[in-house]
Amino acid sequence: MINPLNNQDTSLIHRKTKTKPSRNISSYLIGRPLPTADAPHETIGKAVGLAVFASDALSSTAYATQEILVILAAAGTLAFGYVFPISIVIVGLLTIVVISYEQIIHAYPNGGGAYIVAYDNFGYFPALVAAAALLTDYILTVSVSVSSGVAQIISAYPALFEYRVPISVLCVAFIMIINLRGVREAGAAFAVPSYFFIVMMLITIGIGLFRLFNGSLTSVPNPPQMEQFGQAISGVTAFLLLHAFSSGTAALTGVEAISNGITAFKEPRSRNAGITLIWMAFILGALFLGISFITRAIQAVPSEAETVISQIARTVFNGQGILYLLVIIGTTVILILAANTAFAGFPRLSAMLAEDGFLPRQLTFRGSRLVYSYGIVSLAAVSSILIIVFQASVTRLIPLYAIGVFLSFTLAQAGMARRWWRAGKVSPQDSENKNDAGHELRYEKSWFLKMLSNGFGALCTAVVLFVFAITKFRDGAWVVLILTPIMVSIFLWIHRHYTKVAVSLSLKKYGEPPPYNIRHRVLVPISGIHQGTLAALRYARMLSEDITAVHISMEPTDTEQVRKDWEIWGRGTRLVIVDSPYRLFLEPLLDYIDEILSSRQANETITIVVPHTVQDQRIYNALHMQTAEMLRRELLSTPGVMITEVPYQIP
Amino acid sequence: MINPLNNQDTSLIHRKTKTKPSRNISSYLIGRPLPTADAPHETIGKAVGLAVFASDALSSTAYATQEILVILAAAGTLAFGYVFPISIVIVGLLTIVVISYEQIIHAYPNGGGAYIVAYDNFGYFPALVAAAALLTDYILTVSVSVSSGVAQIISAYPALFEYRVPISVLCVAFIMIINLRGVREAGAAFAVPSYFFIVMMLITIGIGLFRLFNGSLTSVPNPPQMEQFGQAISGVTAFLLLHAFSSGTAALTGVEAISNGITAFKEPRSRNAGITLIWMAFILGALFLGISFITRAIQAVPSEAETVISQIARTVFNGQGILYLLVIIGTTVILILAANTAFAGFPRLSAMLAEDGFLPRQLTFRGSRLVYSYGIVSLAAVSSILIIVFQASVTRLIPLYAIGVFLSFTLAQAGMARRWWRAGKVSPQDSENKNDAGHELRYEKSWFLKMLSNGFGALCTAVVLFVFAITKFRDGAWVVLILTPIMVSIFLWIHRHYTKVAVSLSLKKYGEPPPYNIRHRVLVPISGIHQGTLAALRYARMLSEDITAVHISMEPTDTEQVRKDWEIWGRGTRLVIVDSPYRLFLEPLLDYIDEILSSRQANETITIVVPHTVQDQRIYNALHMQTAEMLRRELLSTPGVMITEVPYQIP
Repeated sequence: MINPLNNQDTSLIHRKTKTKPSRNISSYLIGRPLPTADAPHETIGKAVGLAVFASDALSSTAYATQEILVILAAAGTLAFGYVFPISIVIVGLLTIVVISYEQIIHAYPNGGGAYIVAYDNFGYFPALVAAAALLTDYILTVSVSVSSGVAQIISAYPALFEYRVPISVLCVAFIMIINLRGVREAGAAFAVPSYFFIVMMLITIGIGLFRLFNGSLTSVPNPPQMEQFGQAISGVTAFLLLHAFSSGTAALTGVEAISNGITAFKEPRSRNAGITLIWMAFILGALFLGISFITRAIQAVPSEAETVISQIARTVFNGQGILYLLVIIGTTVILILAANTAFAGFPRLSAMLAEDGFLPRQLTFRGSRLVYSYGIVSLAAVSSILIIVFQASVTRLIPLYAIGVFLSFTLAQAGMARRWWRAGKVSPQDSENKNDAGHELRYEKSWFLKMLSNGFGALCTAVVLFVFAITKFRDGAWVVLILTPIMVSIFLWIHRHYTKVAVSLSLKKYGEPPPYNIRHRVLVPISGIHQGTLAALRYARMLSEDITAVHISMEPTDTEQVRKDWEIWGRGTRLVIVDSPYRLFLEPLLDYIDEILSSRQANETITIVVPHTVQDQRIYNALHMQTAEMLRRELLSTPGVMITEVPYQIP
Repeated sequence: MINPLNNQDTSLIHRKTKTKPSRNISSYLIGRPLPTADAPHETIGKAVGLAVFASDALSSTAYATQEILVILAAAGTLAFGYVFPISIVIVGLLTIVVISYEQIIHAYPNGGGAYIVAYDNFGYFPALVAAAALLTDYILTVSVSVSSGVAQIISAYPALFEYRVPISVLCVAFIMIINLRGVREAGAAFAVPSYFFIVMMLITIGIGLFRLFNGSLTSVPNPPQMEQFGQAISGVTAFLLLHAFSSGTAALTGVEAISNGITAFKEPRSRNAGITLIWMAFILGALFLGISFITRAIQAVPSEAETVISQIARTVFNGQGILYLLVIIGTTVILILAANTAFAGFPRLSAMLAEDGFLPRQLTFRGSRLVYSYGIVSLAAVSSILIIVFQASVTRLIPLYAIGVFLSFTLAQAGMARRWWRAGKVSPQDSENKNDAGHELRYEKSWFLKMLSNGFGALCTAVVLFVFAITKFRDGAWVVLILTPIMVSIFLWIHRHYTKVAVSLSLKKYGEPPPYNIRHRVLVPISGIHQGTLAALRYARMLSEDITAVHISMEPTDTEQVRKDWEIWGRGTRLVIVDSPYRLFLEPLLDYIDEILSSRQANETITIVVPHTVQDQRIYNALHMQTAEMLRRELLSTPGVMITEVPYQIP
């Protein structure tokens, strides 16, 4: 053991603690704590990254095609012919969005997606709007995906219906704990089901296409009753197509996740994240197009009784055999796992906001497994509350969902467009032009083309956003209009507080006052004379010559006892007895201290030495008036006094 | 304003605070605070005392006769002839008990009843049993009487049934607030309904007797269906009579209340309390005998559909006119007001237990209106919980009730018997023989006679207790067998704690250690360098030359910043940086402090100066890690270190 006392010669001693975190319940649950130095190892490669960040996007292929059909159904079955063309347009939009995010990933390698892009190019306000939209979205992703996954389980086992809320909350808790174990373990745990879903869907589409070309693929046998959602209209209108298109863009949700989570990837992280994004886009596009194509080929219909995926699997595999079952299981699991993407994105984004002072700073602290534990737990808590409030019903939550994503798409791409415009203005020689936020801006030869491409992307997503807002306004999208300003206000309120604290603690323009003077007045409040009080008095005598003991007299008999004891133990120290006719303790004492403070001389320091009897067990505190504690709390907010507690432990 | 600094010549200054309690919500609710000097005025005379302390006992006349009939009904209507003889025996027992308590009141003028008598004559263990029984009883009195009063209201307005629990709790809250206003106001407020009940019952009995003697009193017209409670038996047995007798002794509950509340009376309080007790006994006996007599005369029957009181009033007043209504209202109100007696008794008894260290000491504090506010609020809280748990149902609570009273009767009278025996042994000359508890014991000439009388009373009440325990064991009396030991254990546990604290704080055999030495080491934990930390450092420099600042390094970038800032602001003070690879804060710091403590020299004092940033509003604390707070809490239980907080207020 190094004794620091031997190093008196140097004024800086650097040592390392020998404490290892103790093993407790949490280390059994989430694994042994990891040292900070392990951070570079706690990253994931492309294959695992795809599983973590793509599950949200991929899960949307399970319902996006159906969403298009539902809208088209208003114009009759003939309108179903538009499902594949619309899907192609959506994949076109996907391409534009993915190209934008590919650029974002390389331009902002520390992650943050729409928030960082908007912050860097438009300032904090649009950035906060994007952040509010995304955070809301992540929370809803968890609630909706877990609820819908559990709803699938319940359609298989209706007896579980009344337990749907606890089952959903348990699922959230399970995903939370796995994520608290660290990003590497969460990725490994959830990679298998993600890839299982991809493989099953590829098999289904592959066999479907094969049977289509050899002519053995029939229409859906015993198709479910087609249901009419919304009002029937006489023909296919432009608005209907636009509406169907915007509903289908649900397939795009989750695409932004990687841009928020770049820091989770192994170095070179921008490159790894970028390649993962492209892979994800390819798989997503292929599955979505494949499903839409086969949907049309087998004339699947939208229905609440049977999903389109189920109709496809049933038709392709000729009935509900083992392959059919595996497809359904894979779909259920991927729906629940979409939540995992939110657990990867939310904590990182909120840590970034906290770093910038818009959310409580605790969110930047990495837990024992090097993940942002506060963020993970907060996400689980809020989404569980939503599940409980909405009784795990998906339909009431879904309208809120997806608006946030398109808001962030639009802001991110508009931001990139502006960035390219700025990049065009930078002198080609001046390649080290850093702005306030420290983001590098280089001259870009093809800035105009890139600006156009991002601008076009922004326009497209803005249109979708607009259509969304109009078509889903009454279903609950208005909630977003209320929620986003509230969240932005909270961000700003938190930021104002941190700024105020930073300014009042700042050392800029701080001329340090002279050291405290030797004139030191000490007050010792006492309620009785005992070993604890005497310990406080002895300490007070060490601090100063000028000591005043103060006794607030509430019961005359107690005061008489204090007076008598003081003759024996007071050792000539001044004792002030303050009569309190109304049996108040704190108020007369604080008044007395205020009086002393008001007559204080300039070079005087005042210390209150409080004897504090400490119980060995918390429960015993209930048997004592917590006067030391109350006094301390009041004194803390009284400027100009120091509070010294002399603890006296009751063994 | 007296400046205490001018009085340096004297070591004792006595002053009076000028603070008056501020007016707040509670002063509107319970009245302006009263100074301690007003305590003698806050007492009550005999007339109000009768209303306060008799309402419990008097309310039992509303059901005691019926309880006797219910038991006798098992042997058929012929057995009802025993109701008056049994009532006479019960009034005989009442006489014995009242004489005992009359003696107790004069022997123990500071109140405490069975608890004090048992403590003084048998030691603390029987005293605690008596106290547990009485406290349980007071709580049940509140729950049962309020629930039964509300049940009467509900039989008139059945629509209120589903609100019975909130109505009952509101009644308890109302009685609580009136009692918090002080004993004088509570007495005045509740005197009117108590006397109203007495007058109404006297009128009923008077007219009934008058009509009986002029022959105009008939049997009950349209008597309710007599109900058979329990098993029918062929004839009147001794056990049946004993059972009926013990059921009828419900009339005696509440007799002990005055002995617990002597201190509420004006001086000469023993005399006033004694006279009040005798008055109460006379009224109680008269009402009970009168009701029993008329019950028999009009051949009233026990029934769940109509109470005996209602049958009497209906018969005496020839139908349900205005006088009938007034009797029923008076009965309902007195049933609820029985709770008020418990509010007078419980706080005083628990204050007495707290004074002796068997209950939390807070119970001895008198609130702003000079009543034991903690006791009043505790009683209201616990009885409200019982009402909520038992859904304001009386039948499930009643079996628990009354056993406690007879246990305390028996212990009180046995204690008095032993006291007379001891008084007989005292030399007639030695009249100032005080025992440990300070209770005077004089020689008593007629000690043998008094001992016999109390001994006989104890025997009678013990028999009733025994009968109670047997006949009501399965109905829930066994709960008392469980509850009493638990309560006594809690009393003893609390007492052990207070004794331990008293011993470890005691100044007996305390050789004060020498004053703290000048060798003073100061540690200043810092997480960053700012105005708050610098304020702490300046204060530390005033305390000692030997200062060590300690920084726990969790994030390398923060540490780098601290190191840089230290070069500017450290002024050569030693800085120890402790690397914490697992991002723990508290543990490495506490380890470091332990290390310093273990190498401490004998004459060394160690002070930890903690910079504490104080927010102006509590809510902002959520935005900061409460490290100063956590550190302080841990250090409090580390022996040998002083904790100084240098608060830095954020304006």
